[in-house]
Amino acid sequence: MSNKVLQLQKGADRRLKQGHLWIYSNEVDGSNGGLKQFQPGEQVLVVSNSGKSLGTAFVNPNALICGRLISRASNQFMDKSLIVHRLKIALSLRQQAFEKPFYRLVFGDSDGLPGLVIDRFGDACVAQISSFGMELMKGELIEAIEKVIKPTTLIFRNDGKMREVEGLESYTETVIGEETESVQLEENGVLFSAPVLTGQKTGWFYDHRMSRARLAPYVQGKRVLDIFSYIGGWGIQAAAFGAESVTCIDASEYALSYVEENARLNGVSDKVSCIQGDAFAACRELRDNREKFDVVIVDPPAFIPRRRDIKAGEQAYQRINQLAMRLLEKDGILVSASCSMHLQRDRLTDIIRATGRQTDRFVQIIEQGHQGADHPIVPAIPETEYLKACFARVLPSF
Amino acid sequence: MSNKVLQLQKGADRRLKQGHLWIYSNEVDGSNGGLKQFQPGEQVLVVSNSGKSLGTAFVNPNALICGRLISRASNQFMDKSLIVHRLKIALSLRQQAFEKPFYRLVFGDSDGLPGLVIDRFGDACVAQISSFGMELMKGELIEAIEKVIKPTTLIFRNDGKMREVEGLESYTETVIGEETESVQLEENGVLFSAPVLTGQKTGWFYDHRMSRARLAPYVQGKRVLDIFSYIGGWGIQAAAFGAESVTCIDASEYALSYVEENARLNGVSDKVSCIQGDAFAACRELRDNREKFDVVIVDPPAFIPRRRDIKAGEQAYQRINQLAMRLLEKDGILVSASCSMHLQRDRLTDIIRATGRQTDRFVQIIEQGHQGADHPIVPAIPETEYLKACFARVLPSF
Repeated sequence: MSNKVLQLQKGADRRLKQGHLWIYSNEVDGSNGGLKQFQPGEQVLVVSNSGKSLGTAFVNPNALICGRLISRASNQFMDKSLIVHRLKIALSLRQQAFEKPFYRLVFGDSDGLPGLVIDRFGDACVAQISSFGMELMKGELIEAIEKVIKPTTLIFRNDGKMREVEGLESYTETVIGEETESVQLEENGVLFSAPVLTGQKTGWFYDHRMSRARLAPYVQGKRVLDIFSYIGGWGIQAAAFGAESVTCIDASEYALSYVEENARLNGVSDKVSCIQGDAFAACRELRDNREKFDVVIVDPPAFIPRRRDIKAGEQAYQRINQLAMRLLEKDGILVSASCSMHLQRDRLTDIIRATGRQTDRFVQIIEQGHQGADHPIVPAIPETEYLKACFARVLPSF
Repeated sequence: MSNKVLQLQKGADRRLKQGHLWIYSNEVDGSNGGLKQFQPGEQVLVVSNSGKSLGTAFVNPNALICGRLISRASNQFMDKSLIVHRLKIALSLRQQAFEKPFYRLVFGDSDGLPGLVIDRFGDACVAQISSFGMELMKGELIEAIEKVIKPTTLIFRNDGKMREVEGLESYTETVIGEETESVQLEENGVLFSAPVLTGQKTGWFYDHRMSRARLAPYVQGKRVLDIFSYIGGWGIQAAAFGAESVTCIDASEYALSYVEENARLNGVSDKVSCIQGDAFAACRELRDNREKFDVVIVDPPAFIPRRRDIKAGEQAYQRINQLAMRLLEKDGILVSASCSMHLQRDRLTDIIRATGRQTDRFVQIIEQGHQGADHPIVPAIPETEYLKACFARVLPSF
């Protein structure tokens, strides 16, 4: 808490009034000391240029996004009691949306907890802090999580890329319970073991759960290819839903060892095989061997991490989707996903359209998937919406 | 079949090459007789300005969309055998996607059958023809449907608005089986009776099925309001999924009589009540009476029928969403839908954002729905994508 005031430039309150929650460093009025007066992570009152209160915020004078709104009330700062309150509001949504305690419990700004992500795996929670303000609240945060969730394991995977921008060091820490390499979770009735300590991000990606559930009707008795499989989120579910065979491609031997473990967990080891290697090269080899699949899933890592990567990234999406489409049977289904915030949904659709024309196929988009209810979108913050899945039926040219 | 050739202007083949299937009258080369040489509904070969074949098409010289591609092969015209083939391709998708025979079997261009819609209700089919070319094929079409589906009832609801544009008369006809006012269907495990002979369009809207299924987790034990209910597609499902009470608002007494019938069919009559009247007026009255609901569903008719209606239509969407949001409890869910092709998804999201700000609420978009797999989208034809549903959790301001 501080009595300090961050004053915006004239007109710079517009985005906040529209519902956004971020302040950029070039929007701060410099006349009364500007950003220099603040310590990283300090909580301040934000006012418009005319002095009207806009709410409270975390400030980090060293980051481009120098302010993150905490509340629109001028007297509500982040403390243990507010974290408990916001955790309860977040929890009640997840408990409505999902039958079992496996979900993203907190999705940053979207849940009023800027710079915090928590994934829940039953009694285990894996948290990621990415803002200086939240890092300073770590003690209160642990107490709040204990109070609301009572986890037997709480891990901080404070090793995300965003931390560098905020000037935070990178570390992993188990603060409640014994250190454990992996935890078990259930998604759409399928079991997974996820490497929470050394896997990607928190170890698991809950965001595609709704789209993965939609695999069920399309994979019965089918040959399925899962490109960029990671630990088998799509592929193992396809196998459990009744696919005849599933081939997972990933560059990481470590990830593929989890694919095998997850196949065992669900009794589908006989259906699941793995190819370790570069996805593009592996697809070209399958093509050269004239292999065909009924369903091909393409869920690459973010090919467009920053705005300036849009052109190169879109070309990568084009290449991998074209390779995928060429591996499809005459009447097959391409599941094409993207987690790049900078790839608009209509651009992904257009990549699929263009690929269909190039390969002389008739394409029907039959389903479109989004991040699930445990990754809520704040409509004023386009950055909170990043996930896309597109189910395309690919037929011979009409 | 004819040996006639429709020649496009220079460059006018571009859209077709990108995957679109329509030809506009101002794209036809007039030098060799132009459109005047064709009869409405004729099948012709389409060539680029340089004479390169682009495929075959239905032609209607009197319509703005004067050509609709049948095939990209220069020798494939629409006949009974091609209709049978295309029906089988359409059927195989629906049989994969849905367990029971209740779906849109044919969705026009998206299924390679331009100007034709068929909704299937078990053994009953209701078809709508909206192009001159397809009207001329009606005999072959009936034979093809008999061959592929063997329906005991086949009704033509040839009374759509598009027919006038094509110069077709408006009529309703039962061509197979006895004339029947209504048929029964099942959607997401819930039973409905639909007025196929005199209801809206084919009597039922299958397009929102996937979004309606998503009501289930959010309505348990809740008070639900269904604005523009028609015959209860959303409301009755909410009741069947466990809502405490459901109120349906519709202007049509006839539609509401079906709501009551459908409530009886599912044994939820005690939970369902109806308000007959203008939706806006009814919502204002509920507001004045300080009524509150946990879930409010807004699924209006197309407020933006034509591009020129965008401004007035968006205002209507704004007004009804604002009324709906004001009827929500402190932590409620707004299900906001639109079937207007001219309302972009991000515009609907923005309307919800703006409404949240105006009413000082914090909005989380938790699910987004699209037309189901029985309404496939051709990615090159934006006109084939028209349906949107947005589930927004509406909280007190953070």
